[in-house]
Amino acid sequence: VTTFSLERQDARLLDAADPLAGFRDRFARDDPGIIYLDGNSLGMLPLATAERLTRLIRDEWGGGLIRSWDHWIDLPVQAGDELGRSLLGAAEGQVLVTDSTTVNLYKLSRAALGARPGRRVIVTDDDNFPTDRYVLAGVAGGQDAELRVIRTDMDQGVTAADVRAAVAGDTALVSLSHVAYRSGALADMPEITRIAHDAGALMLWDLCHSVGSVPVDLDGDGADLAVGCTYKYVNAGPGAPAFLYVRRDLQDQLRQPVQGWFSQQDMFAMGPAYQPVPGIRRFFAGTPDVLGIAAVEEGARLLGEAGIGRLRDKGMRLTGYLIELADAWLAPLGFALASPRDPGRRGSHVCLRHSEAARICQALARAGVLADFRAPDRLRLGPAPITTSFAEVWDALDMVRQITENQVYQEFPAAAGAPAG
Amino acid sequence: VTTFSLERQDARLLDAADPLAGFRDRFARDDPGIIYLDGNSLGMLPLATAERLTRLIRDEWGGGLIRSWDHWIDLPVQAGDELGRSLLGAAEGQVLVTDSTTVNLYKLSRAALGARPGRRVIVTDDDNFPTDRYVLAGVAGGQDAELRVIRTDMDQGVTAADVRAAVAGDTALVSLSHVAYRSGALADMPEITRIAHDAGALMLWDLCHSVGSVPVDLDGDGADLAVGCTYKYVNAGPGAPAFLYVRRDLQDQLRQPVQGWFSQQDMFAMGPAYQPVPGIRRFFAGTPDVLGIAAVEEGARLLGEAGIGRLRDKGMRLTGYLIELADAWLAPLGFALASPRDPGRRGSHVCLRHSEAARICQALARAGVLADFRAPDRLRLGPAPITTSFAEVWDALDMVRQITENQVYQEFPAAAGAPAG
Repeated sequence: VTTFSLERQDARLLDAADPLAGFRDRFARDDPGIIYLDGNSLGMLPLATAERLTRLIRDEWGGGLIRSWDHWIDLPVQAGDELGRSLLGAAEGQVLVTDSTTVNLYKLSRAALGARPGRRVIVTDDDNFPTDRYVLAGVAGGQDAELRVIRTDMDQGVTAADVRAAVAGDTALVSLSHVAYRSGALADMPEITRIAHDAGALMLWDLCHSVGSVPVDLDGDGADLAVGCTYKYVNAGPGAPAFLYVRRDLQDQLRQPVQGWFSQQDMFAMGPAYQPVPGIRRFFAGTPDVLGIAAVEEGARLLGEAGIGRLRDKGMRLTGYLIELADAWLAPLGFALASPRDPGRRGSHVCLRHSEAARICQALARAGVLADFRAPDRLRLGPAPITTSFAEVWDALDMVRQITENQVYQEFPAAAGAPAG
Repeated sequence: VTTFSLERQDARLLDAADPLAGFRDRFARDDPGIIYLDGNSLGMLPLATAERLTRLIRDEWGGGLIRSWDHWIDLPVQAGDELGRSLLGAAEGQVLVTDSTTVNLYKLSRAALGARPGRRVIVTDDDNFPTDRYVLAGVAGGQDAELRVIRTDMDQGVTAADVRAAVAGDTALVSLSHVAYRSGALADMPEITRIAHDAGALMLWDLCHSVGSVPVDLDGDGADLAVGCTYKYVNAGPGAPAFLYVRRDLQDQLRQPVQGWFSQQDMFAMGPAYQPVPGIRRFFAGTPDVLGIAAVEEGARLLGEAGIGRLRDKGMRLTGYLIELADAWLAPLGFALASPRDPGRRGSHVCLRHSEAARICQALARAGVLADFRAPDRLRLGPAPITTSFAEVWDALDMVRQITENQVYQEFPAAAGAPAG
């Protein structure tokens, strides 16, 4: 029994009934020839963000100059609170927008290891995003600790049973991605967090591929630590700063390794000894990126206005529709689903496996359909709930079908990818 | 014998003869009532940067979307090379624009300690900027090393003799600021670097307060490592990313602790093990801030067009003029110079000591003269060579005189400062 029809007209009916359809016009759309299925790599430009940045540059920097720091100084916590409220299920004072996901992951994983003396194991999985695996390996190696790597089914993601088998009394930290970067598999946050806690370990979630597409309830699920980027579903722009979350009652127990001036109590005393400020600001390192943080705040507000519940609902229906079309049109052409089939077990992107995925991805780009190739043989399609229509999913899948059927991809030489996880 | 006259008319003559005067119009100046002597905290907005950022946001992000990463990926090295060529005396492939000064200092000091096994001492001085002292203390503490802190005259800065007395066979790294954040004292880079090398140590320079105001010759002086910010004299905007320099022949010997995906060889293989790319890119951590890096490139280009030699010459004359006026007008009112008197021994900012400096600084701000208070009792005045006129220096010093003479500052209650070193 298919839920969706395969006629293009039916995609248009789905769009007509979409309560979020109006949000599509809140984004820059200069090129109507583009179908963008890469919002999970770099989200589109919200018009409000373009305006905010223009004002910030001209009026606050150009006009206000150094005086604007009087309010800029509050932005990293203010934008963090907006993320917490709209998207992360985090009460205020626990989220900070600063640095990159990589640097935040480093700071928090080092702090976690320091907070569990005697425990020398960090647990992660082999399908975690490269930066997570590399950073954690570096932190473990630098601290006489061990990185224990769960072997995972790369199409289905890490399971609670996998984690239960990997943690023990030696485990200081479990660090996993909430949504897998390749398959889109959604990990069971409450259950896995409970398993980590039962073992006496801290739990750190990487939310890069879930924030803005899947409801996150950090406080409710008892997460200890989290990091995530903002240039994907949060639409904050290329290289916009990441966020970090530290549960309130842990904040003053943790000591982060990058002892920067911005995390110092009484900064302007310029005193001789480092004394970290209480609260979430102690996880600052250096001067925060004001433009980027303003863009994060705008992006989070826009998603908050759409509502994460409605975004999640549309995301499941968009990816479900995509899978229906792939089953009908692409499976006969050699494609196989490389993501969970259960919509409750995946985020808002889907991978299709095909031996010619790399070249098909290039041919799609030339035809105006922007998606990703991911090693070894995946076409990754990410319909962002706030910007993608059902008709675009139909058109994109139809284009995959045409390109594959007619072997258009044979005009292209080799594999390529886009530099943003 | 005074070099400069004390009449305002003479300041205008100096401006008329200033070869850099035309560059003042290349910056946003919406409020003609402002005299800006804080370019050493946050540089002004170059008009070209406002245009570049608008294009980048609208066309490259909004229009180009993920495809723009094809050229964004080159920006951090491209902007680094521009800084190297225009301002740092660094041949290409040795400067990277990424992260904050704090994070870069952390990465490089950890790497340096790792490259000198058996040596467990880092040398710095007690007048170094707080983030430097705190980060180095954290790195030393985390690596069973010691931070040896030179006691310095806070008005005259660290000397070669100070460093000679502090280094020994146990020293892995000497880390100092090129220009002191408070006094503006300029350290002797070639001599101090030689002393560090003679002791077998690596030398790391913090260029935050010198880049763009004082010629730097990293390659010529044999520096090993350097970091610096771009939101001061480079005019790249609030929280713009910092840069780091690693001498070419050291790059592949060093291993930085934040093993991010962006420093991985063959990124898109997403392979199991971290293997750092050769060259300067191995000092990347996470995804670089594209908007900020573009602003760094514009700022460096503009300074390159002005020429660092001419900027240095004007900077010495601006601060010399400022000191002449202070000697004549302010010394009788209780001010004392808290910076080197020799122009060759200072950068482009000057501190004046006064027991009421904090309140005088607030009164100045209300009158449109933007400067800094720095603990314990300094009024810090930073005329940026590319944006400040001699007449503005005259007007600002005249305003200090009036405010102090008439005790206008007594209307203000307590000390305050602006959050950018």
